[in-house]
Amino acid sequence: MLHIFLLFSLIFTSTNVLAQDFCVANTASGIVTPSGYPCIMEANVTSDDFAFSGLGVPGNTSNIISAAVTPAFVGQYPAVNGLGLSAARLDLAPGGVIPMHTHPGANELLYVVHGHITCGFISSANKVYLKTLKRGDVMVFPQGLFHFQINAAGKRPSLAIVTFSSPNPGLQILDFALFANDLPSSLLEKSTFLDDAQVKKLKGVLGGTG
Amino acid sequence: MLHIFLLFSLIFTSTNVLAQDFCVANTASGIVTPSGYPCIMEANVTSDDFAFSGLGVPGNTSNIISAAVTPAFVGQYPAVNGLGLSAARLDLAPGGVIPMHTHPGANELLYVVHGHITCGFISSANKVYLKTLKRGDVMVFPQGLFHFQINAAGKRPSLAIVTFSSPNPGLQILDFALFANDLPSSLLEKSTFLDDAQVKKLKGVLGGTG
Amino acid sequence: MLHIFLLFSLIFTSTNVLAQDFCVANTASGIVTPSGYPCIMEANVTSDDFAFSGLGVPGNTSNIISAAVTPAFVGQYPAVNGLGLSAARLDLAPGGVIPMHTHPGANELLYVVHGHITCGFISSANKVYLKTLKRGDVMVFPQGLFHFQINAAGKRPSLAIVTFSSPNPGLQILDFALFANDLPSSLLEKSTFLDDAQVKKLKGVLGGTG
Amino acid sequence: MLHIFLLFSLIFTSTNVLAQDFCVANTASGIVTPSGYPCIMEANVTSDDFAFSGLGVPGNTSNIISAAVTPAFVGQYPAVNGLGLSAARLDLAPGGVIPMHTHPGANELLYVVHGHITCGFISSANKVYLKTLKRGDVMVFPQGLFHFQINAAGKRPSLAIVTFSSPNPGLQILDFALFANDLPSSLLEKSTFLDDAQVKKLKGVLGGTG
Amino acid sequence: MLHIFLLFSLIFTSTNVLAQDFCVANTASGIVTPSGYPCIMEANVTSDDFAFSGLGVPGNTSNIISAAVTPAFVGQYPAVNGLGLSAARLDLAPGGVIPMHTHPGANELLYVVHGHITCGFISSANKVYLKTLKRGDVMVFPQGLFHFQINAAGKRPSLAIVTFSSPNPGLQILDFALFANDLPSSLLEKSTFLDDAQVKKLKGVLGGTG
Amino acid sequence: MLHIFLLFSLIFTSTNVLAQDFCVANTASGIVTPSGYPCIMEANVTSDDFAFSGLGVPGNTSNIISAAVTPAFVGQYPAVNGLGLSAARLDLAPGGVIPMHTHPGANELLYVVHGHITCGFISSANKVYLKTLKRGDVMVFPQGLFHFQINAAGKRPSLAIVTFSSPNPGLQILDFALFANDLPSSLLEKSTFLDDAQVKKLKGVLGGTG
Repeated sequence: MLHIFLLFSLIFTSTNVLAQDFCVANTASGIVTPSGYPCIMEANVTSDDFAFSGLGVPGNTSNIISAAVTPAFVGQYPAVNGLGLSAARLDLAPGGVIPMHTHPGANELLYVVHGHITCGFISSANKVYLKTLKRGDVMVFPQGLFHFQINAAGKRPSLAIVTFSSPNPGLQILDFALFANDLPSSLLEKSTFLDDAQVKKLKGVLGGTG
Repeated sequence: MLHIFLLFSLIFTSTNVLAQDFCVANTASGIVTPSGYPCIMEANVTSDDFAFSGLGVPGNTSNIISAAVTPAFVGQYPAVNGLGLSAARLDLAPGGVIPMHTHPGANELLYVVHGHITCGFISSANKVYLKTLKRGDVMVFPQGLFHFQINAAGKRPSLAIVTFSSPNPGLQILDFALFANDLPSSLLEKSTFLDDAQVKKLKGVLGGTG
Repeated sequence: MLHIFLLFSLIFTSTNVLAQDFCVANTASGIVTPSGYPCIMEANVTSDDFAFSGLGVPGNTSNIISAAVTPAFVGQYPAVNGLGLSAARLDLAPGGVIPMHTHPGANELLYVVHGHITCGFISSANKVYLKTLKRGDVMVFPQGLFHFQINAAGKRPSLAIVTFSSPNPGLQILDFALFANDLPSSLLEKSTFLDDAQVKKLKGVLGGTG
Repeated sequence: MLHIFLLFSLIFTSTNVLAQDFCVANTASGIVTPSGYPCIMEANVTSDDFAFSGLGVPGNTSNIISAAVTPAFVGQYPAVNGLGLSAARLDLAPGGVIPMHTHPGANELLYVVHGHITCGFISSANKVYLKTLKRGDVMVFPQGLFHFQINAAGKRPSLAIVTFSSPNPGLQILDFALFANDLPSSLLEKSTFLDDAQVKKLKGVLGGTG
Repeated sequence: MLHIFLLFSLIFTSTNVLAQDFCVANTASGIVTPSGYPCIMEANVTSDDFAFSGLGVPGNTSNIISAAVTPAFVGQYPAVNGLGLSAARLDLAPGGVIPMHTHPGANELLYVVHGHITCGFISSANKVYLKTLKRGDVMVFPQGLFHFQINAAGKRPSLAIVTFSSPNPGLQILDFALFANDLPSSLLEKSTFLDDAQVKKLKGVLGGTG
Repeated sequence: MLHIFLLFSLIFTSTNVLAQDFCVANTASGIVTPSGYPCIMEANVTSDDFAFSGLGVPGNTSNIISAAVTPAFVGQYPAVNGLGLSAARLDLAPGGVIPMHTHPGANELLYVVHGHITCGFISSANKVYLKTLKRGDVMVFPQGLFHFQINAAGKRPSLAIVTFSSPNPGLQILDFALFANDLPSSLLEKSTFLDDAQVKKLKGVLGGTG
């Protein structure tokens, strides 16, 4: 019986099916397209490409926001290329905050691993959706909308894992977008109604010019 | 020959081809889905559904921003339902400004009908892309990124037509998102690093509470 | 200054922007479309719709597989409707297994909350990608491919959170698909090469007929 | 062992997985959306919904084009709703022709069941791609481009099955689009450069007015 | 306070977020994929890439159609690559016409900058949707359907800006598709029912052979 | 008149419209992206690229399954790249079977060219949809679900043509996925509940190890 089963095997393999079940990114090729990176040849892909350990390492929260973001986007985790998914780790020390930001390219789902986190987002209708989550809770943040997360656990650190509906969700942090570049203060003030003193103060600490 | 050609006609019409070339929105049905509104029955669609005159009327710019936005999104212009397109009219009186905002759901292409307009957007890398456009120029603003437009024409009004890559691009204006709702000032200040005085001042004028 | 800012507010709200930042599912409408469920009216949406506590409750693993799957798909968690995301909780007691299965409609990203989990998937090229993950590790499973998870933690329970690239990923468990319905044994055996005794044994315990 | 396996079964069914593997169209609901029709409730779907016999019946080619098109689009074959596929049968008697036409909403793949068929399409660059196919050959016609099929089999009828990349590909036949409606002849002639006599002749036989 | 804010800055930049907010086309790479061109490295992108002045220049309408089309597709305007948008300028001298054509790859939205334009399109159901637009009016033309535009302004030139739901909408002009290539007249006449004299006349002036 | 028509021609060709009506795969480039292969330069594309004769050749069914699958996926038929379509030929000798399998990346539509074929698929709800098709019948198999085809024609061979909603649908045959690789038997048995004897028997004939 063996020989005929092997025949069976040969028939199907001879059909030369080109699988594209996945497309592990070749981030070193110098090529990116609107659909993502070129794929590593399947023959060179191993189990290690699909697993990623970077989210197991706590971020360093000894900083002004008492928080850290560790991404597993396609740049760090090439296996998500073309899969419509990526992830990140949020560490929030007591009092820590992930400042107001948006992801221009993806929806987000947050899962609280431990601690309590107060999460909020603001809709196009300017309505605030605010919720304090505990361990095991999840919350979604629709694409492109302002949102933030704050450690509401009192004296304990909080940890969350977030996933995105894109391998490359983008990240626009309000303060950096406004105050950490060379956008002329006159244009910034005119378009945001912020006071000159406020603008200059935050530009000062964030290194903005203009 | 006539009778046989009519036969020809009958054959094809008897195939009962259900056309879905378009899907003019039935915005009165009380139903919306992730792909848009249900369609009006094709038999009830007329030429008037496809044309829209609302962008021919100048917006009233006698206001604090000396500007006005007139949308032709699916809510105003049901024919764009399902077509991956919509539009808006931007009127900017001398000194007028369309304040810092994002469109969570679409890319944007701006065309200057007359006047000069200084346009800027800020990328996820916090880089500013700034350009003063004249009549006939176009510029694109990628989805979800902060951008603004300011009349740079000196003493003349400016007019632009913008189109979007979605029938319903959404619109999140920075000042309204931050200061025109009940987001508690403590959370707002912690997540934006804005001073309490600045927050209270803008909440005051924009009607925000908390 | 107040009155003119209010004018500013009126202008924009008078544009009657129809936001569709999100589309919380109305699962009670009796309507489902290829793009998902109709949306609840935005005026009726609250913060509670976006948060979900069901994944915080351990599944009952006192069963033959010593494991449990708790989904947060659109049926349980209507806020993910149209967002291209959903989630589930995997509880694996010592020796527990999530049996060989596929998700016909989504890619999957698994995050190990605690314990050790041996994960494997099989590609179209019949290659096995196998990896034992520890706390904090993630792994992706491409759409439609066989995969399984086994508690490799020895004497401790393991917990994982998985997210999907669709609000409704589907789930086809090999044993249930083959042995828990009325597919005639003759067709089943002919199409799977499984022995009659094997088929009858598993049909017996899983309630299959034919 | 039986009772514990049944427990296993209960666990998974208790997770209440809402399957949306397919979405057989409810074409009688009066609702269509940009993504297609609402789905029939899964409990009411049977094997008969997925199979379709209409393409097994030869079309009547006793007409001026000596040809017939029998569609299996979503209107005739509701199971293709949401699946990105549909089909049609082309019967071509000797000398028969499927006249110049486009499908605005889908790419097409043609398979010759028997006979010889000369197929052509014209690209945006106005280049003609022309090929005479024999039994078993396939050919693709990209979306929205003019194409036609002519029986090249001499004295025998030809049969082809075509499939489309959409449940509802649309169909715009050149002669019907130009000459079988009330488009004023002056506009038609100005926009097509066809002679008045030619326009009037074809309007005459196809029932056009204006 | 400065130094700690700089720390804050370092944290986020150290996450090495790979932005793909946009993908300005590298049209010189010799590579095109189904999703578009490869992207220029973000470091080399400037404000000038996002703006385009080509639509500010009137087209030369001293020709047989008294009209001109000036495209801003991805080939001319690389910034629209991957953005689902592009544009074009239509100049119509008095009596000018954009002849009957289709865009195989995109929906279209037309805005009248000045003048009057009579626009028409024909659906799959062979119904004509006809409308004379004035300054400021917009109209949509669904993908793949025949349409045309004619200057209805009497003695004044008309100008329109059109936008598309794709960076590369394609363009198939009826007369060029039929009469400006080597499609054999016998096949052309058989598939269009046009008279031989008509075909030969238009092939003659448009350079067609066969 | 000729010279002015030629002018007309020049105008449009001078607009340098970059057509991307199609994207015939350059499978020799060494590059694949999530959206498919790079395109062959349009100037090098001929009619022969769009036609494919491989499905006209009967597969060799002198094997254990008395059946053969001949694919026209993008690997064999580069013209389908980016078109959302591909095809395959199924030959089933009397008693032949296409064993239980899934396509992870596409929906499928089957057309019976001759003979009788018993087709079945199993949904996420573990329900069996079973149907015996005759010549001319079609049936759809939703993405990622188990299905099989068996010659039900008694003493005659059967032939079917299947098309897919992707240029590269993938193919996972149950027996090969489970028994033709190095997945350790202990993991396989634990995750499938198959008996050790059954696993070893099929691994033996299919060449599996571990």
